[in-house]
Amino acid sequence: MNNFTFYSPTLFSFGDGEEKHTGALVRRFGGHKVLLVYGGGSVKRNGAYDAVTASLADAGIPYAELSGVQANPRSGKVYEGIELARREQVDFLLALGGGSVIDTAKAIGFGAGYDGDFWDFFTGKVKIESTLPVGVVLTIAAAGSEGSDSCVITHENGNLKWGCPKTDVIRPKFAVLDPRLTCSLPAYQTACGAVDMMAHICERYFSNTPDVALTDRLCEALLKTIVDAAPKALADSDDYAARADLMWAGMLAHNNSCGVGRDQDWASHQIEHELSAFYDCAHGAGLAVVMPAWMEYVCNHDVMRFARFAVNVFGCEMNFACPENTAREGIARLRAFFRSLGMPTTFAEIGARAEDIPAMAAHRAEKPNGFPFGGFVKIGPEEMEAILRLAARA
Amino acid sequence: MNNFTFYSPTLFSFGDGEEKHTGALVRRFGGHKVLLVYGGGSVKRNGAYDAVTASLADAGIPYAELSGVQANPRSGKVYEGIELARREQVDFLLALGGGSVIDTAKAIGFGAGYDGDFWDFFTGKVKIESTLPVGVVLTIAAAGSEGSDSCVITHENGNLKWGCPKTDVIRPKFAVLDPRLTCSLPAYQTACGAVDMMAHICERYFSNTPDVALTDRLCEALLKTIVDAAPKALADSDDYAARADLMWAGMLAHNNSCGVGRDQDWASHQIEHELSAFYDCAHGAGLAVVMPAWMEYVCNHDVMRFARFAVNVFGCEMNFACPENTAREGIARLRAFFRSLGMPTTFAEIGARAEDIPAMAAHRAEKPNGFPFGGFVKIGPEEMEAILRLAARA
Repeated sequence: MNNFTFYSPTLFSFGDGEEKHTGALVRRFGGHKVLLVYGGGSVKRNGAYDAVTASLADAGIPYAELSGVQANPRSGKVYEGIELARREQVDFLLALGGGSVIDTAKAIGFGAGYDGDFWDFFTGKVKIESTLPVGVVLTIAAAGSEGSDSCVITHENGNLKWGCPKTDVIRPKFAVLDPRLTCSLPAYQTACGAVDMMAHICERYFSNTPDVALTDRLCEALLKTIVDAAPKALADSDDYAARADLMWAGMLAHNNSCGVGRDQDWASHQIEHELSAFYDCAHGAGLAVVMPAWMEYVCNHDVMRFARFAVNVFGCEMNFACPENTAREGIARLRAFFRSLGMPTTFAEIGARAEDIPAMAAHRAEKPNGFPFGGFVKIGPEEMEAILRLAARA
Repeated sequence: MNNFTFYSPTLFSFGDGEEKHTGALVRRFGGHKVLLVYGGGSVKRNGAYDAVTASLADAGIPYAELSGVQANPRSGKVYEGIELARREQVDFLLALGGGSVIDTAKAIGFGAGYDGDFWDFFTGKVKIESTLPVGVVLTIAAAGSEGSDSCVITHENGNLKWGCPKTDVIRPKFAVLDPRLTCSLPAYQTACGAVDMMAHICERYFSNTPDVALTDRLCEALLKTIVDAAPKALADSDDYAARADLMWAGMLAHNNSCGVGRDQDWASHQIEHELSAFYDCAHGAGLAVVMPAWMEYVCNHDVMRFARFAVNVFGCEMNFACPENTAREGIARLRAFFRSLGMPTTFAEIGARAEDIPAMAAHRAEKPNGFPFGGFVKIGPEEMEAILRLAARA
């Protein structure tokens, strides 16, 4: 086990109806005037917007609004939010939505107090030292940004989907997680969320660090829970128990509970960011295409770890004579599971084209420290292209 | 799953040599003058005291000292610490030790700012609203107080071993967890610690709350890790990987990571507190005697949960024709496991006497809301005596 620091000071208020405490939570964490950040009409249709604004009113907290945040959130909305936050002199950001909304609020949070371009924090020109406090009312179990130290924004100038350097400074002060708010999600988004959280766990699970028995088991506990709960949520959108399992698993998958003390991989995420940048596919959908291909490519680096994944997550029978068979079966089971959720697992299904593969690798190379990436197996341009070719063929 | 709030804002600095950052952490959390609380000579022998005081000196932080905290920590030391904290005008408490030292520091922390008797917080006369900040350098994996919202003190006047009402206010600001500092522990203390953390998980695991699949699996992940690691730490005191697993598991076992959203039991702890109060046995030793007896007594309340425990934690084969056989086998395996660690599992081994059983129940009855207790099965005086009789016979 590696040395580590774990600091997850977010207050989680979890359960049916908890959004009615939003105003009191903003007060508790020092907010007097809020910028309410959200996406489109879904939060108005499912009642979340009304409940949250009523709670703010009850607590006597005025608010300005920034709406229209899209999936794969754009820099333009961040610039707009920074200007609005300054003009309205808000002292608290409240994200009502999923990962895109939360990441937009986070970027506004550290951008608002900085005189230069907020993108400087992404290029590494300046370091994030402070932020306006951010609170969250979550409406989709997926990205885990409600408890995470990360933030991903796509800069429209160059179509760059980049994460800022991870820092505990940007962890939300509080997050309200009401599984009921996710019951109205379309099946496709529910499934994308399940894939995203499984990816967050796998990026940590596939590690070369020895002596990580405890976090290995925590990863498997989370993965098994998602494999069990996601089909139930798709079969019955109002299955509260399944929605609750998914929602709490999504947070634990990415606040680093199951990743402490171990080297992590993150290659699938890096490759997927290019798919999203090129085709604007949902992040979860891109991951469903990339992750099994990545696994096939790197399987022989540590066959026994993939065999363990197959046995402990998917209940495969261990083939002691040929562990690689078990390992490969686990990967096949993962891809089949994604398909069973209605996820794309082929290039064609997300509108991707094999002939773009060299351009995606070239685009990646433009990023500072673009290559190599991946903590489990080092991925250079050739390996990235090979993985994408496997995905294109799947 | 029940609604819940989870707020664990402690910063954990984990790994070999991390105690050298203690001074910087005190500074980060606003400390200017420290009261260093510890027990006896072990922290001087194992180098922890030297490393911590050197780190405080490096950070330019003066400190006063309160030493001599005992196991089953007493009110007398808390009164002494409160007086010392006021006289020395410290603004930060640093606990260097295990649960007894941490709980003493916590009680000093909320007692120092209160004009009355700190015991008023335990009787419920006043509510804990604020505390001096507490930091921890942990030297034994056991109580989990380094990340918990609880504090247990024995009042010498009446021999009352009571916990204060649980509150996030008293969670430590930071905790340094260096597994290396636990390598010099005697085997008996290592084993007591393993039992204590298993008890913290079981008190949460045995629940009547439906739809808690995720926390069930997290509980099992922790239990399996302890069952695997504890014998390794006893076989080789310097097994860093085993020590690290135990240390992080001990924290997760009691910061409520695996207990959110479910009713909890805590009957074994309540009964054990009387054993400690009567015979001053180690908490872990008392739990090793009580817990299997409690399990035998309540097993038929939910045979399938005990069968699951047997299969998922101890790898028992499920007897589908007679699940109770599997359930009972799991309890037997737990008792045998405790014995294999060198723990007492009989009354005689901790110096307890069957003829004291009525007096223990009577002593319990003196506590405010003394009976009934237990979230899984309600325990009144008769049930408590029956469980203790089972323990006496074991």
